[in-house]
Amino acid sequence: MSFKSDIEIAREASKRPIQEIGEKLGIGSDDLLPYGHDKAKISQRFIDSVQDNPNGKLILVTAINPTPAGEGKTTTTVGLGDGLNAIGKKAAVCIREASLGPCFGMKGGAAGGGYAQVVPMEEMNLHFTGDFHAITSAHNLLSAMIDNHIYWGNELQIDTRRVVWRRVMDMNDRALRQITASLGGVANGFPRETGFDITVASEVMACLCLATSLTDLQKRLGDIIVAYTRERDPIYARDIKADGAMTVLLKDAMQPNLVQTLENNPAFVHGGPFANIAHGCNSVIATTTALKVADYVVTEAGFGADLGAEKFMNIKCRKAGLAPDCVVLVATVRAMKMNGGVAKADLGSENVEAVKSGCANLGRHIENVKSFGVPVVVAINHFHGDTAAEIAAVQEFVKTQGSEAILCKHWANGSDGTRDLATRVAQIAEQGSANFAPIYPDDMKLADKIDTICRKIYRADGALIDGKIRAQLKQWEDQGYGHLPVCMAKTQYSFSTDPEARGAPTGFTVPVREVRLSAGAGFVVAICGEIMTMPGLPRVPSAEAIMLNDDGQIEGLF
Amino acid sequence: MSFKSDIEIAREASKRPIQEIGEKLGIGSDDLLPYGHDKAKISQRFIDSVQDNPNGKLILVTAINPTPAGEGKTTTTVGLGDGLNAIGKKAAVCIREASLGPCFGMKGGAAGGGYAQVVPMEEMNLHFTGDFHAITSAHNLLSAMIDNHIYWGNELQIDTRRVVWRRVMDMNDRALRQITASLGGVANGFPRETGFDITVASEVMACLCLATSLTDLQKRLGDIIVAYTRERDPIYARDIKADGAMTVLLKDAMQPNLVQTLENNPAFVHGGPFANIAHGCNSVIATTTALKVADYVVTEAGFGADLGAEKFMNIKCRKAGLAPDCVVLVATVRAMKMNGGVAKADLGSENVEAVKSGCANLGRHIENVKSFGVPVVVAINHFHGDTAAEIAAVQEFVKTQGSEAILCKHWANGSDGTRDLATRVAQIAEQGSANFAPIYPDDMKLADKIDTICRKIYRADGALIDGKIRAQLKQWEDQGYGHLPVCMAKTQYSFSTDPEARGAPTGFTVPVREVRLSAGAGFVVAICGEIMTMPGLPRVPSAEAIMLNDDGQIEGLF
Repeated sequence: MSFKSDIEIAREASKRPIQEIGEKLGIGSDDLLPYGHDKAKISQRFIDSVQDNPNGKLILVTAINPTPAGEGKTTTTVGLGDGLNAIGKKAAVCIREASLGPCFGMKGGAAGGGYAQVVPMEEMNLHFTGDFHAITSAHNLLSAMIDNHIYWGNELQIDTRRVVWRRVMDMNDRALRQITASLGGVANGFPRETGFDITVASEVMACLCLATSLTDLQKRLGDIIVAYTRERDPIYARDIKADGAMTVLLKDAMQPNLVQTLENNPAFVHGGPFANIAHGCNSVIATTTALKVADYVVTEAGFGADLGAEKFMNIKCRKAGLAPDCVVLVATVRAMKMNGGVAKADLGSENVEAVKSGCANLGRHIENVKSFGVPVVVAINHFHGDTAAEIAAVQEFVKTQGSEAILCKHWANGSDGTRDLATRVAQIAEQGSANFAPIYPDDMKLADKIDTICRKIYRADGALIDGKIRAQLKQWEDQGYGHLPVCMAKTQYSFSTDPEARGAPTGFTVPVREVRLSAGAGFVVAICGEIMTMPGLPRVPSAEAIMLNDDGQIEGLF
Repeated sequence: MSFKSDIEIAREASKRPIQEIGEKLGIGSDDLLPYGHDKAKISQRFIDSVQDNPNGKLILVTAINPTPAGEGKTTTTVGLGDGLNAIGKKAAVCIREASLGPCFGMKGGAAGGGYAQVVPMEEMNLHFTGDFHAITSAHNLLSAMIDNHIYWGNELQIDTRRVVWRRVMDMNDRALRQITASLGGVANGFPRETGFDITVASEVMACLCLATSLTDLQKRLGDIIVAYTRERDPIYARDIKADGAMTVLLKDAMQPNLVQTLENNPAFVHGGPFANIAHGCNSVIATTTALKVADYVVTEAGFGADLGAEKFMNIKCRKAGLAPDCVVLVATVRAMKMNGGVAKADLGSENVEAVKSGCANLGRHIENVKSFGVPVVVAINHFHGDTAAEIAAVQEFVKTQGSEAILCKHWANGSDGTRDLATRVAQIAEQGSANFAPIYPDDMKLADKIDTICRKIYRADGALIDGKIRAQLKQWEDQGYGHLPVCMAKTQYSFSTDPEARGAPTGFTVPVREVRLSAGAGFVVAICGEIMTMPGLPRVPSAEAIMLNDDGQIEGLF
């Protein structure tokens, strides 16, 4: 049996002009700013005009902890969106934009897969509508203005050892992780250590994804803390007078992008923070706009439910006043097997016992999501080679958890493969049984918020927070940041900080290595274990195989 | 008397949909890839389809050496284009894209001024269609792949002290001029000194601007020399296997951008290399395409005729098989006065003697352009405050040079202000009196090419090239690069390397500090005096005043 590659399927798509896609949501062509014939930004005027519409139902797609076997969260998000449209519901999907850097390393694209894709896939994995480039420019303008301020006399008395604002690039470039800048003499400034993060890890990205308007965006950008004085007083981006120009650079990037699925249904693709270091959800403005024009909005949060869904609930929903009506938890038989201890090479053989054992991971995620007061359906994303007994094992397990698992074949069949899931999700959402609440209140102490997530979500014996970090958290509380939620930065591969500990580990603690204040985005980042804010390229980067073929088509981008 | 600012005039423009502008050149809407409603890229299919059309007439707009008084080269290019259309000629202008970095520093925009502007002015000075971001990404992908190659074992045996490929950012950021990268231990690679240039100075920019097709672009990118081994053998971008992915990143950026003037005439805006460090002309593909669809193409080259026009003739025309039919040399009374020794503060008073004295600069440029076998008309770009006697002085001087100077008032009056100029330029072009040839042959020695430009164009007593540099040039000749033209990097403010030496200096030599091989772009750069490949921001960057006003319009971008 031979399969078409994602890019082959995407190329064969019968795309409709983007104006037709906008029409499905009542967006006139005057309110669509086209980027080519198949991409558009939605005007602020239109967004303002629908503010009084009632909201549609909000469905969150999340997953078990990722394994090398693949889960297909974006693929399922797209498949469910198409499925809802196929059963007669007016649905839109909301996903994140792809980061350019990883595309040249080893990561697959961020546009779904098989017959559940968003197109134009190539553009989405390259420059798309330029949003990330705008974020990079805005971030680095602030960086340049900080060093320029120091160069011309340092009126704000910035302690050059305490500049916390780095630079960003949308590239996997380990050589830039740690650098000494301003070398070469008087004309180049005062030498100091700094470095680059990848653009998706930028606080500017988080600000853009959480902002409700350009005015709100500018306020958030102004609130960013870029450095401290010798007396530890914070210096804000506003003090550097960069917030206005940064907002101008982000003016177009703030407008949500509209594209389409292979089945010509509307897809909002906007924002793209990492879920391990940042909050991992698409933009608030895209989600809230979609809810005003569609009856069902299917969105996703990055990595497993311990990271993406937790932050979706505790950060995005809390901040934006959103409440999910139903959560779809994506699992695969293969990933269950890996969670049950099977090596990647052995995934081809039936192993019902391993599936059952790996279901512990799934079970914990189900419980966790329910703890937010939201009903859960498990979507089994079908892979060629899954056996009936293995599938049945997952379904039986899920039943014991008081939930249900529905087999989905959208990768191979598009919306035909998600009709059952779509029907059930619609039923649950219409029942209105969700009673959403974040799992910690605003007024809890910051250290206790961290500890709460570690205990309730990760099932750790607690967070290990040493005196120095506690003092830092206390200082932020004194400065008025105690009400902020916590953004956990942790490996995506395990509930614990040990990437090898699959399944449902217990008997561990979570060491908090460092805390950072993202005053503009509006959260405190707690870094647990090793986290990379600038990835590197592998030994053989996929870039080596990316090229134009003789027909001018892109090869090697998957 | 009060004047409207450029941005106010631009905002009041009656823009036509870009499809209507394309129609004027016979470009159907299917062949226009829209970016919003007022910008579009022209499809490769269309470009291919017009290859057999006869060429229109090519007019180059160049200028005297720039002074702080301002000359208005882009403004005159746009004004002449509108003027030609106004007298019934089918004309298009071809200008360069603006660099983002300088916009936040102190430089004005690159879209012309007054009633001779290209719109949308704000977008053109910000992200426009993303071409520069694509160039930045392609450049930095190569940088990351070089360090990644070294990190994973350095199979090509790159001497890490001899990596000549730096990184780029479209930002004025002096802190990045010289850095030490790969600090922080084993996981981050091998520490080495490197730095960033501004994107417009990238050899990728030069490759894109000189490439005739995507295939040619990929070949050029592959030919870029990125490093040397200990044995001084060159390592090419092709060896790093980056050329394919770089081409994919530049696929859209290679398509010329179409916008419009305030009078709704077509303007190609594509490519933007600096004229002091790079070759300073818009893209070959834009110019050659415009020549196939318009009867008159008005283009410009950066800075004064000693830099931009010289490179336009000796590099761009030579490489692309182009030949200008007429050159327009822009001068202003104010700039003549400054060349005649008047300080900026005193420009407001009539000073005919200073004008006459400053005309020496203009005279030398006229002679130089004629030495390429092309007829010259001087355009006096009128400023409020120029006196009749001052204007007459310029006109009389130009007559003594066997040329003519025509007063133009396009800044205030649009095409009404350039009818005379347009009429005369059209006459000259139709006469076919041009007999273009570069001033040095391909097979001249590299050192002699440098010396020829210094003597014939700058009127120096010769180039000072020490033994080490001569040996380097000789080595490149031995390696097969001897046929390349020379790209002079020199201050734009004087014929000499002393920026203070205005007018028509004599009795100087030109010290060549360094030579660089741009094997992909196809030229040898000769750096004379001090040249900055990464600018810095001024004490009060214009970014501090750039912001959105309450109507969502951009303020402070001029």
